[in-house]
This record gives sequence, C-alpha cells and structure tokens, in this order.
Amino acid sequence: MNIQQKIVVIGGSAAGPKTAARARRLSEESEVTILEKGPDLSMASCGYPYYVGGVFDERKMLLCTPTGVVRDPSFFMNAKGINALTSCEVISIDTENKQVHYRNNKTDEVSSVSYDKLLISTGSTPRIPPVQGTDLDGITTLQSIKDADYLKKIKDDNRVKKAVVIGGGLIGIETAEALELAGIEITIVELMDQILPFLDWEIAKLVENHLKSKGVNVYTETGLDRFIGENGKLTAVKLKSGTEIPCELAVIATGVKPESGLAKNAGISIGEFGGIIVDEYMETSVKDIYAAGDCVEIKHRITETQSYSPMGDLANLQGRIAATNMVKGNVEKYSGTIQTGICKIFDFAAGSTGLNERCAEKSGFEYETVVNASPDKPGFMSGKLLVSKMIVEKSTGRLIGYQCAGPGDVSKQLAQAAIAIRGNLTVCDLKDLDLPYAPPFSLAIDHFIASSHIMENKLKGMLRGITARRLREMKCKNIGNPFILDARGPDEYETMRLGIGEVLIPLGQLRKRLIELPEDKNREIICFCKISLRGYEAALILQSAGYTNVKVLEGGIMAWPFEREK
Amino acid sequence: MNIQQKIVVIGGSAAGPKTAARARRLSEESEVTILEKGPDLSMASCGYPYYVGGVFDERKMLLCTPTGVVRDPSFFMNAKGINALTSCEVISIDTENKQVHYRNNKTDEVSSVSYDKLLISTGSTPRIPPVQGTDLDGITTLQSIKDADYLKKIKDDNRVKKAVVIGGGLIGIETAEALELAGIEITIVELMDQILPFLDWEIAKLVENHLKSKGVNVYTETGLDRFIGENGKLTAVKLKSGTEIPCELAVIATGVKPESGLAKNAGISIGEFGGIIVDEYMETSVKDIYAAGDCVEIKHRITETQSYSPMGDLANLQGRIAATNMVKGNVEKYSGTIQTGICKIFDFAAGSTGLNERCAEKSGFEYETVVNASPDKPGFMSGKLLVSKMIVEKSTGRLIGYQCAGPGDVSKQLAQAAIAIRGNLTVCDLKDLDLPYAPPFSLAIDHFIASSHIMENKLKGMLRGITARRLREMKCKNIGNPFILDARGPDEYETMRLGIGEVLIPLGQLRKRLIELPEDKNREIICFCKISLRGYEAALILQSAGYTNVKVLEGGIMAWPFEREK
Repeated sequence: MNIQQKIVVIGGSAAGPKTAARARRLSEESEVTILEKGPDLSMASCGYPYYVGGVFDERKMLLCTPTGVVRDPSFFMNAKGINALTSCEVISIDTENKQVHYRNNKTDEVSSVSYDKLLISTGSTPRIPPVQGTDLDGITTLQSIKDADYLKKIKDDNRVKKAVVIGGGLIGIETAEALELAGIEITIVELMDQILPFLDWEIAKLVENHLKSKGVNVYTETGLDRFIGENGKLTAVKLKSGTEIPCELAVIATGVKPESGLAKNAGISIGEFGGIIVDEYMETSVKDIYAAGDCVEIKHRITETQSYSPMGDLANLQGRIAATNMVKGNVEKYSGTIQTGICKIFDFAAGSTGLNERCAEKSGFEYETVVNASPDKPGFMSGKLLVSKMIVEKSTGRLIGYQCAGPGDVSKQLAQAAIAIRGNLTVCDLKDLDLPYAPPFSLAIDHFIASSHIMENKLKGMLRGITARRLREMKCKNIGNPFILDARGPDEYETMRLGIGEVLIPLGQLRKRLIELPEDKNREIICFCKISLRGYEAALILQSAGYTNVKVLEGGIMAWPFEREK
Repeated sequence: MNIQQKIVVIGGSAAGPKTAARARRLSEESEVTILEKGPDLSMASCGYPYYVGGVFDERKMLLCTPTGVVRDPSFFMNAKGINALTSCEVISIDTENKQVHYRNNKTDEVSSVSYDKLLISTGSTPRIPPVQGTDLDGITTLQSIKDADYLKKIKDDNRVKKAVVIGGGLIGIETAEALELAGIEITIVELMDQILPFLDWEIAKLVENHLKSKGVNVYTETGLDRFIGENGKLTAVKLKSGTEIPCELAVIATGVKPESGLAKNAGISIGEFGGIIVDEYMETSVKDIYAAGDCVEIKHRITETQSYSPMGDLANLQGRIAATNMVKGNVEKYSGTIQTGICKIFDFAAGSTGLNERCAEKSGFEYETVVNASPDKPGFMSGKLLVSKMIVEKSTGRLIGYQCAGPGDVSKQLAQAAIAIRGNLTVCDLKDLDLPYAPPFSLAIDHFIASSHIMENKLKGMLRGITARRLREMKCKNIGNPFILDARGPDEYETMRLGIGEVLIPLGQLRKRLIELPEDKNREIICFCKISLRGYEAALILQSAGYTNVKVLEGGIMAWPFEREK
C-alpha cells in the first residue's frame, strides 16, 4: 500500500476525529494519526449536562458509536484505519522540519511524529474568574468528562444541598438545570444584566422568569467577590454586594477561551479573541498546518468580522472541510458562522441565530425589529407559546437576526431563520414561504411567516411598535403620558392583566366607544392584547379615527417580562 | 366615514376571511363583505381529522379564535368591521356591472351586492369516483364540518366496526388514523402503486409499513369497482379484483377539484387543472376580480409550470397578498408554490417539499438523489429515526426536492429544506449550515446537513449508491450477480438482517479479510450496514483495494422497505 501523505491531528474530541475520519475516507492510502492528551476519544461533550442531570445514566453512551462500540484506539484502528494515541500530549510543533513532539502522560516518554499535513484541534479551556478561593474543594467546571463524572457522583451521592453556578451563559444554564433536576437548590450568578448573552434582554428575561418558576435563584448584574471555604472545602460564594450564598458546590461557567498556546509557540498567527487565525480553507498562517474547532477564530458571515464561536456542530463542519483541503489541496471553503445557538431550559428552549439587536447596533446596521408572541400550533392541537424577535436590515429587508424562546418548538423556528439568513432572504421572500403545514406541526400561517408579516407592516409604516422594556421604563420613570389600551375581553382582563394604568376596551366595542379615548388626537396611545393582534387592529382603528401617535405593545402580555398585577 | 371601496369576498373558509380581514386592516374606510354559502365561517378544516380522531372533543375549537370567541357574523362585524353573510350562496357574478347575485339559502331570497374589488375563494369539492353506489348511506367525504360531525358521531356511537377509506392521499391517511384511533378496523384502498403520491415509492412504502404495523390494511394498485349496499345502507366495498371488503362506513378521499364553476360562468379564464387562472398579483383574467385558495391554479416555483396545490396555508398567504393588491393596487407578488406537504401518521410523520423524483424526471431535470437514514438526535437523548430523500439538480447542485418520513422530527427537516429551496441553496451552501445545535434538538451534524455531505460525495464520484428498490428488483429478477456485503457486527446480524444472500464482514475486520471478497475486481459489490455509514466506509476500502464496481445500499437496513429475514 502506498502511503500518500502523513496526516497528524492534534486533539481527539470533536473536530480532530472528524478530520481524521474524513481524511481517511478521502485517502485510504494516507497515514492518519490522532494525538490526544486525555484518556478518551470522541467524547460527546455537549451531552455532559444531560448525563449529569440523569437524562441517561450510561456513561458509555458519551463515548460510543450508535451501535454501542466504544470509540477507543482499537476502534479507530480497526474500523477507521486511524492510529489514535491517547494520553499523548503534544509539547511542540516544529514547523521547519514538519514534526510534532509529544509526551506520553503515562510513561513520560517523549516522542516525535512527522507530518505532511497537520490539524490543530486543541479545543478550549474554561475561563476562571481571578478571585480568591478557586482552588477550594467543591469548585468545578463542566468542560471535561472528569468534570462530568465529578458532578454525576455528586448528584448520585445526594449529599450536596446547595450549589451556585457562576455564569448565566449556555453551559451555566444547562448545568443549573441538570443540578436542579438532581434536587439541589441552585443559584445562578451573572455579571451582566441578563442571562444568555446571545439573546436580547427582553427575551433573556423570559427565560430567567422560567428558571425562577422552576425554583432556580438568579442574580444578574452581580459580581463575584470570592469563594469562601473551611478546611479547604467550599462553604459559600461571596458576591461583590457583600451577600454570601452558602453552598457546598460551585460550578464555574464563565465561558471558554481558545486553547491556542501550542499554535502560538509554533509561530502561528493568533487573533483578537486569542484563537488561531485560519483562512477560508481552515489553513493557518503556516502552510500545511490547518486548525478547526474551539481553538480557532472564524468569520462571521453577516458582519464579516472575526468571531469566536466555540460550538460542537461548527467544529465538526470545519473539521470536514479542513480534511478535504488537507487531502485534496485547498478546494473547499468554509463560509463562516452566524452564531446560531440553542439551549434547553426545563420546559423552555431559547436560542438565537444571526445578530441580536445589540450586535446589529454595534455593527452599524440600520435595522427594524419585531417581537412576536404566538403559539407554534393551533389551540386544538395544544399549541405552545413562542416568543420571537426578528431583526432585518432596513434598507434591504434582509433577515439578519432571529431569537426565539418559550415552551413551543423553538428549534424549528431557529432552524428556519438560520437557513433564511444563509439564503439572504428578505421579508418579501419570507412572506409567502411554502412551509410544511398540518395542524399537528404548525399554524396555517407559521409563527416565522407571521413575524415577517408584522415586519412588513412595520416597514411600510402601518404599525408602530413599542417594546415592553421601553413601556415599563416610561411608566417607572414617568416619561410621557401614554394612554394605554387593553383590547381584550373583560373575562380575560379578570384572569390576567398588566396593571400599569391600562384602560380596557374590547376590540369588538372599540368602534362604538371611541368617545372614551383621549380628546387630544396627538396623545400617545399604546394598544395591546394577549399577543397584540387585537392590539394591532385596535391601533389601526384609532389611526383611522385620526389619532396620530398610536403604538402597539409588541408581543402583548405574552412577551411582557415584568411582574403583572394579575 | 368615507367608504373608499366596496370589497366583496365570496367564500368564508380560509382565503376569504383572511383577505377580508387584511383588506379591513389596510383600509378602515372600505366596506368589506363576505358571502358564505354554509352556516359557518373560518372553519379550521385542516383540524377535522383530529376532531374526528378525538385529539380534542370541543367542536367549538374548530370555529373559535384562540381566546374562545366564535367567529360568527357578529364577531366579524364587531371585532373586524366586516359584514359576513352566512347561508348566502352566490349565484352569479355580473362582471359588466360589477355585481354579485346571491341567494339566502334559508329564505331563498335573492339579492345583489356591488363591488369595486371582488375576491373569489370558493374552495374545492371532493372528487367522487364514477362508480355505482356512491349514494348509499354510510358513504361520506371529510370536506365539510358536516362531514366531520357525521364521522365524529360514528366514532362516539361506537357502532361501526369496519370502514374503508378510498384513496391513500393526505386526507385519506389522516382520516384512516382518526378512525383507527376510534377502534374501527380500517382498510385503505389506493389506485396507484403507493400511498401519499407526493412521496416517492420507497419513502411511501415506509409509511405504508408503519400504517400496517398499527393494524391498518392497505391495498395499493387496487381499483374500486363499486359500493355494495342493502336497504340503502353500505355493506361492502367491491374492488376491481373481485374482492369484497365488508364495511359499514366508507370515506371517499380521492382528492379534490377546484370549485371554479362560478368563475367560469362569469367568463373568467380557467386553467388545465380546472382552477381559476390568476396572475402573480392573484388577479384573474377579469380586472378587479381576484381569486385565492383551493379554487385557483398557481405557479410552481421550480418547474415554472401551472400547478394545483389546495393547501390551507397557501390559501391564507394568497389571501393576504390578494387583499393588499385589492386595496393598494397591484403592488405585491405571490411567488408560487413548491408543493410542501406534511402528514401525521400515528407515531410517524411524512412529507415532501419541492420535486419528488418522479416530478424531477418528468420536468426534465438532470438530478442526483440521496437516501439518508439517521436519527434526529443523539442516542443518549432518545433520538428517533428519519429517512429522507434529497434531490438536487446535477449541473448546479441546487436543492430541488426533499422528502422525509419516520418517527423523528420530520417537520423541522422539511421546513429547513423548504427554506433552502426558497433560497436557491446548493449542496455547497448546505454543507456548512450553521443550525441550532444542542443534544436535545439535533445531532452535531444535523440529518439535513449530513444528507448534503452524502450528496457531495456522490456528485464528486466518491460514492455510488443503489436504492433498496433496485437491489430488491435485481434479487427478485436475477439481474446481475452482486456480492452483497453487510459491514455490521455479528451481534447486530443476529438481531436483524436482510437475508438476501449477503456476506457478513464487520467493517473493523474488512481490511484484514479482503481475501474473502470476490476475485473478480470488476464484480458488482454492494455494501451496507444499519444506515450505510459503515457501508460507505467499507465501499471506500474496497475501491482502494482495486474493486471497480462498488456501490452502497442507500439508507442501509433502516431504509429497506421490504420484508427482512429477521
């Protein structure tokens, strides 16, 4: 057998094995080697929270093929023809002589392997806040399978009563859910003014409310002062505010940073996020050395700036492309990320694709937003609520961002939006999408299409919106003097209401009761209902009656993230 | 109040009320009238099968707003400012004088209403096969709420033991499920060689197998001879083959035809499918008369030919566009259909978007197909199987069709494909889509992306596929002499196997056991495994070993729609 090329892969988690397997499939003749510093290969690390939470109990499932074969070195050798070396930590890359030096962590023996093409997929490491006490017993991250084992044991031992999760990002929330399900009282501490920073504030607030409804304590805008311990064991988390939260366990989930030291030491260019810089072929600044996964920075498709997007799916897709280019020469381009992310939160899901409003603003886009609250399916099919926020570029109507949260089918909504963004679709394209409709699966006008209809109405000036956050601010700070109109029925009003001084006039009576509206036709009027469809119709009636400053509370009561009177 | 325009809408089901409501929102000053021949308005007709099947019991839910208000004439008047006349059947349209003549079916009184803009949304009527006995008691369709009431009563009365559904299309299958859930023994009789004609044969066959596993009898390629009765009551369905199927109930679901007689009599152009011809503004051949919903023919976006696509979601989208153009002048274009459809079948869903293979061939496309069988989520999250078929145009790699069936999240797959088709995305675009990934929602490489990867491999000549149907035909008719290789493990082989003369060589042993392969390097070899990923890797090993005619059984055992040995 002719050995065509020597392909070496550093890192055996996601991007590495994918690259190695694809390289093998593209070239049965090449010699393919994986060097992994830990004991395991191809760990399903995104599954750790669900293992810890007891969604499944067989640890093996994190390390197995779907048919139950452990992905160990002998599997890689026999099934894939790949030489996978575990417990082998790379010390340095000699780019001159195209050699990789590594140490066997079991024997301390140092060896070298030469390469024609090299992939660096060294992943990421957790950020640890620079505070006192991080070395106490009872403090962990959820990054490695060792971490997962540690937390799983805590769950199974049933000894820990209180835990604090530092960081309200994706991993923090997933970990909080897992531990809460294990019967542990959870407090999440987040430095920013919201959890899940990929969402805009008002959508994140809905998720926060849901977490709280499940018994999770959430502190936002709260700095961590230090960890407090006795006899080397964690006893409390102290916040900058002075508050101490007693706990036996703390999980640090304040994000990850690219593990790019090895590349840097080899003279490979590193970017603004500390990640390895790659071109569109996933090749680094040094010829024949490629990189993929959590250790790289990649292009954001919409802003065309660098981004750091450490996601398991992207790692796999990048690895596949890197492999193609390593074997075939640079023939396949990676198109970049739109930073799509999703997260399960008990009976909720929440996620984002493309730009959120903060990013759109920061990137200098002129944009319009729509908040839509409506179910995923008809009521008679037990449809569940979705609250979404659509963001389009004003000049072109092009979709540039979409967020969604709620108990409904969030994942499908986000997938639709992600592909619409990929296709550069505009509001005009979305308005008559031919989607799979039947009552068990969606509304006749799908939530996503409905959002585009509302957007079209806004862009054409038929509808002026106001966000819940802005209305609340106006009320709290006594800004303006809006007349607030609830267009629902009296029975609905009795069951649930905002209680911010609104006046109830059911839509069906509005045309006859215009006399009850303010005399001043220029006074600001804000209309709403449960989801603000009737609110919208009320606004149109008022506009037609000569009112000049009529707005609709976007998403109605269902998107109102603050406390209600009832 | 200035009356800007008189807008009249014929038909009060889906497109009609949508058009009326949108017209009202666009112009509070217009006079908007709906004429509906039946007693109800805005019936959720797509929900009938689920009402009959007992998914929900409150009939009111078919006629209510989400907050429980019945959409009756007073609702339309008060909430929408729309004059909705029920039991008012239009007799004729006087296009010269812009008048509509209608009869009140309760009083037999004939009246007229004049219009500036008219919408025809007269819907469709069921096709009734031209056989004897269709007037027997016990024969129905499921088109109207009256039909739904009839079937619901049959379910609740619990008297009917056996029923036959004539027609294996979407409505037929939904009805069969509803009645089966009511404890009635169901037989489906379909003239074509498959059920669900929007699917290709091999995907439809999987659905048929699922129906059978639930106790439903399915006859395909079976003509209906006549209905047999005693004392005016149905007692059996007689097939062309001579077989008689005893039954007390038969539901005719052999499709619908556009209800376009009124339009035709008014001199409006009718198309090849018998539907009203509309331009891209939804305007008919007569100025100021628009049409939308099941009564129109529309453009197929991919083939750019006329199509008949009577779907509730399209009716709504068309109605919205028609309303805009009726009020604002012709400013908004309808972009046409890609005939997306989906159907729930017990624990399965099945659907299609774009062209299936038959249509692609008929339309003269040079295309490539990929059948992919793999789960929607990881095994540790209880992922469920999806079997899909992707069709792309060969010259451009553009996605032109996608079908999917199985217990997994079919609806999301189809939605993704529908939007990808809308965006003219190619295999190259799909290969690195940034979709919402987390284990509760998808695999790291989503099923849809994986299909595009297989497609890329096929288009680049790395993979040659063979369909289950073709392999089965070869075995049955003794065509060729393929060596069939099962690349799974012995334990898997013991549990489940095709039994078509395959030889078991586990992938992990293949490199060492090449000696067991045929000597003739040009002999056809067909590799497979459970889902044909290992089958693919086996094929690559064999190709590299010099075999020149190696194929992969697409979708492996999971997509095999025929009986297995085990």
